[in-house]
Amino acid sequence: MAPQYAPSLRSRLAPLLLILQTEFIIILLIIVHLLDLMTQGFCCLPEFQDVNVMMILGFGFLCTFPVRYGFSGSGFNLLVAIIATQWALILNGIDSWYNTKIIRIDLKSIVKAELCAVSALISIGSVLGKTNPVQLTLIALLEVTGFALNEWLLQTLLKVQPPNSIMLLHVFGALFGLMLTWILYRDGSKQGFEKEKFDKKSGLFSMLGAVFLWMFWPSFNSVLVGDDQTRLEAVCTTYLSLAVSAVTAAALAVLSSPRGKFNPIQMQSCIFAGGAAVGVSVSVVQQPWEAMALGFTAAILSTLGYRYLKTHLLIAFECHDTCSVLSTHGLPGLLGWLAQLVLQIKYCDDHTVAVRFAVYHICTLFITVSLSLSMGIITAFLLKWTFWRPQQNKKCFDDQAFWEFPNLVVRK
Amino acid sequence: MAPQYAPSLRSRLAPLLLILQTEFIIILLIIVHLLDLMTQGFCCLPEFQDVNVMMILGFGFLCTFPVRYGFSGSGFNLLVAIIATQWALILNGIDSWYNTKIIRIDLKSIVKAELCAVSALISIGSVLGKTNPVQLTLIALLEVTGFALNEWLLQTLLKVQPPNSIMLLHVFGALFGLMLTWILYRDGSKQGFEKEKFDKKSGLFSMLGAVFLWMFWPSFNSVLVGDDQTRLEAVCTTYLSLAVSAVTAAALAVLSSPRGKFNPIQMQSCIFAGGAAVGVSVSVVQQPWEAMALGFTAAILSTLGYRYLKTHLLIAFECHDTCSVLSTHGLPGLLGWLAQLVLQIKYCDDHTVAVRFAVYHICTLFITVSLSLSMGIITAFLLKWTFWRPQQNKKCFDDQAFWEFPNLVVRK
Amino acid sequence: MAPQYAPSLRSRLAPLLLILQTEFIIILLIIVHLLDLMTQGFCCLPEFQDVNVMMILGFGFLCTFPVRYGFSGSGFNLLVAIIATQWALILNGIDSWYNTKIIRIDLKSIVKAELCAVSALISIGSVLGKTNPVQLTLIALLEVTGFALNEWLLQTLLKVQPPNSIMLLHVFGALFGLMLTWILYRDGSKQGFEKEKFDKKSGLFSMLGAVFLWMFWPSFNSVLVGDDQTRLEAVCTTYLSLAVSAVTAAALAVLSSPRGKFNPIQMQSCIFAGGAAVGVSVSVVQQPWEAMALGFTAAILSTLGYRYLKTHLLIAFECHDTCSVLSTHGLPGLLGWLAQLVLQIKYCDDHTVAVRFAVYHICTLFITVSLSLSMGIITAFLLKWTFWRPQQNKKCFDDQAFWEFPNLVVRK
Repeated sequence: MAPQYAPSLRSRLAPLLLILQTEFIIILLIIVHLLDLMTQGFCCLPEFQDVNVMMILGFGFLCTFPVRYGFSGSGFNLLVAIIATQWALILNGIDSWYNTKIIRIDLKSIVKAELCAVSALISIGSVLGKTNPVQLTLIALLEVTGFALNEWLLQTLLKVQPPNSIMLLHVFGALFGLMLTWILYRDGSKQGFEKEKFDKKSGLFSMLGAVFLWMFWPSFNSVLVGDDQTRLEAVCTTYLSLAVSAVTAAALAVLSSPRGKFNPIQMQSCIFAGGAAVGVSVSVVQQPWEAMALGFTAAILSTLGYRYLKTHLLIAFECHDTCSVLSTHGLPGLLGWLAQLVLQIKYCDDHTVAVRFAVYHICTLFITVSLSLSMGIITAFLLKWTFWRPQQNKKCFDDQAFWEFPNLVVRK
Repeated sequence: MAPQYAPSLRSRLAPLLLILQTEFIIILLIIVHLLDLMTQGFCCLPEFQDVNVMMILGFGFLCTFPVRYGFSGSGFNLLVAIIATQWALILNGIDSWYNTKIIRIDLKSIVKAELCAVSALISIGSVLGKTNPVQLTLIALLEVTGFALNEWLLQTLLKVQPPNSIMLLHVFGALFGLMLTWILYRDGSKQGFEKEKFDKKSGLFSMLGAVFLWMFWPSFNSVLVGDDQTRLEAVCTTYLSLAVSAVTAAALAVLSSPRGKFNPIQMQSCIFAGGAAVGVSVSVVQQPWEAMALGFTAAILSTLGYRYLKTHLLIAFECHDTCSVLSTHGLPGLLGWLAQLVLQIKYCDDHTVAVRFAVYHICTLFITVSLSLSMGIITAFLLKWTFWRPQQNKKCFDDQAFWEFPNLVVRK
Repeated sequence: MAPQYAPSLRSRLAPLLLILQTEFIIILLIIVHLLDLMTQGFCCLPEFQDVNVMMILGFGFLCTFPVRYGFSGSGFNLLVAIIATQWALILNGIDSWYNTKIIRIDLKSIVKAELCAVSALISIGSVLGKTNPVQLTLIALLEVTGFALNEWLLQTLLKVQPPNSIMLLHVFGALFGLMLTWILYRDGSKQGFEKEKFDKKSGLFSMLGAVFLWMFWPSFNSVLVGDDQTRLEAVCTTYLSLAVSAVTAAALAVLSSPRGKFNPIQMQSCIFAGGAAVGVSVSVVQQPWEAMALGFTAAILSTLGYRYLKTHLLIAFECHDTCSVLSTHGLPGLLGWLAQLVLQIKYCDDHTVAVRFAVYHICTLFITVSLSLSMGIITAFLLKWTFWRPQQNKKCFDDQAFWEFPNLVVRK
């Protein structure tokens, strides 16, 4: 029995969740007058389920690798995902509510809200094991608010269309998370937390999550793309890119290891690089070889990021990125942004148009990056407040802090 | 090595299964003359696979939480599911066979049969770990017979349409299971069985099953709903209801625990409450806030049921409900029935019509409840017969009773 | 710490993968000029994802049962699957490239390539745990080459249509794998490798893979079938056949065990028999009872194969078939071939046509069998070369040979 208990969640989490949930219901009761489904051009159910699986199962089980943190990893991911989705559903509807006093909820708006929620799931990956569910709920709310604001700014100022602005979620989520973990730095991260380890079975659960992410990424990238034809193209290019990045990541893992072996956690971070890169540039990547070359580069970048940048961040900047979201989502996302710039310019005949596009495209990134950094910093300072009762250092990465196991079998 | 072996399954299970299976083939050989597929208005493959996943994987892995009962939990679930589906396929076809001497088998009839099988899967949840596969097979056959009879009665006497009558499966299955476990009560249940415990890895497998159930519930509720438009509405309302009930269940779990922590088994029982409630009332819930309010109430009811009713049932009535099917499916199902009544009356302008609907709706429930209770009692008395060779008390919740592990690694 | 390290993968695997991957990109850069998607008659995304899930998750996690080989089982399966898919994509396009200088890549061609890759996954099942990833990559390349050659021969010489020729993958893969494991026989297989054991948790991961294979087999069998109507028929017949073979396999497992119990590994090998059998004969099985009878027979054959043939092969022929691919895929595949012959002849009115079909059908099998055996032998002799640095016997079935676990928790 630990001499010092982790703080109870009772007086903070339960009221927060109940208030939020009744708020959401009341908001929808007041302002949603219509549940209207127009199914034209939206292939619906299978894509919806695929995104759902990726969000709940993929991200959830990817976070089960710490040996004593499986329930928290998968359970809190579910909690954050559904709170963020509901909040995003309301925020995304504000614009239409302002004009027509009606928010339309249909399968497409839920899918869009889920994509916004994924940006929050990426952020919480960087603070996995070091925050309690109250903090995670707050992160979800503020991150989604920032992301919706970013989308609105991009759309209003620069006329960036939804698939393009939403797909920047990889960049937004990763930078937001990086700021969080930088400011919420705990002493002791450098030596590694006592329980930040994995065993082979928890590693296999995490492998399961990784495999689900890998498998459903094509649906994820294509779900918001306009017509049927383009959507199927997006599925193909994403698949090819993912395939190439998985093979490349495997080769580089072996190359970069001193003893010539694979590292499971590294593999689980780097095999998706192609998916994130093609996701950001989904509207311009058309040729198979472009997608594959992008996947190849993304895997190299992601592996370099995992091997060198992650350690560097920890030692030089005291920034402990648990799930290495920078190398998994951030760098490939930036690469995708670059690829979109290059390809778009390549397709331009006119020099002026190309320059104009470049300026516009750089502004898009600039807004996204500065908003994610500033929102991340604000959120992190809010979370530093001890009112939220963060767990002690030795309760990091420990299910026991948040879960009770009355019938747990005792290992002899 | 145990001093007393569990009874061999050889002389009971193998003949039973082989006879059943050849019977099914012969029945289909004789009476099914046509495999005709009409696909109008039935979106088919994806929904079929989703229901399949929910039935085999969701329910199966939900039952893997007892630490030594993972193979039985998932394996026997598969066995029961496919026997029940085949039997339901034949029973559901009797009506059409009576008229046309032909049973039509297509994807829709298989999906319908799978939903009937789910009611059997719910029932066996209550006796999980305390029955052998011979008994489970018999439960499957009798439960599905009762359920098909109930559906036929509702349809003939009260003109209840298929989606409405089939969705009562939550109520039917839960009450049937409750009767089973009440009559098959074993001494020693009060102290808890020696092996009715879980460890963290078996708990994660169970979490996986729970997550799959949660993710595919929207498909499950919508699969039998008429046209495309309504089906997508059912997906949206189920999703919203599930989201609310998961958040509410989390808040209540923390509130109801003395030390302010989550209980994984409780979470896995209560996060679906909204799905079951909306399922029963799927034809009348249309507004998002209605679905969300229903999910909110269902989660409260389910948590109360798990925390207080379950213990009460065990102590006062000697009714040991392993998977707490009453609070997971029974209470939310009844709530859904009530919601359907209230909403339908609200939509009625005419007072007479409202009263008539209320009477009709109460009759529906009355038939379902009395049939499930009586079939459950009959089945339970049949299973008490020692001819079926139930395992000893100390072999409860133990894979070793039914599975052999020739190459099992020995823990040092 | 082991006194003798397993050979590093650095100097062999990394260059091989990088060269292959850049080759693939260059080939596609040069010869694929078009990503054209024609979606008529191809229901696309859901089926694509189902096949994907079956290939990556089903086959991958089925191979996690050895207690220390979970990462290799699932990870190398992913690696082989994506390399084989890319290679098959190129090989399948050669024919069209020869005529039009263009290879068309769309969702259908990717699905077709995935099916070819599955034949390689079946093959590597037989050498699971006894080969390193370099060898597995070579197997993937050569097996897919052989399979594409076989398909081309069948199409050119005998005008066998794609679904029929591709579905022979079960026979091709199993025999190819058998030759591999026969020639690559290691001393010590008879006593069993030290680590070729499973524990209950690794067994449950394997159960998970098995359940996924079982659930998505209907999509797998139907994905290449022509029109919508026939595809749904294929889904129904496959489902019925799988259901019957799972029940029958359970009954026979209990019957064939001396103590009347289930054997998890045996169950995981035999419940799919009906799927493979119906897969090969998918174009002629139309009546439900035919599918069910086929499933019944396939389960019997598969169980006999698992119980008696596997041991016999090991003792008499020194052929150690780890995942028993012969009884899981080979025998049911051959049964399916026979069923196709019998049913086709039954439907023929004319005696001459029947004889002609029989000859043609026997030729089909003859070409497939001889090509798979000879390609298997050639591949195996290539792999015997110690240049590929196979692991030592005591590193068989051991993740430690290929994976590094820097943060592994130490069991006290």
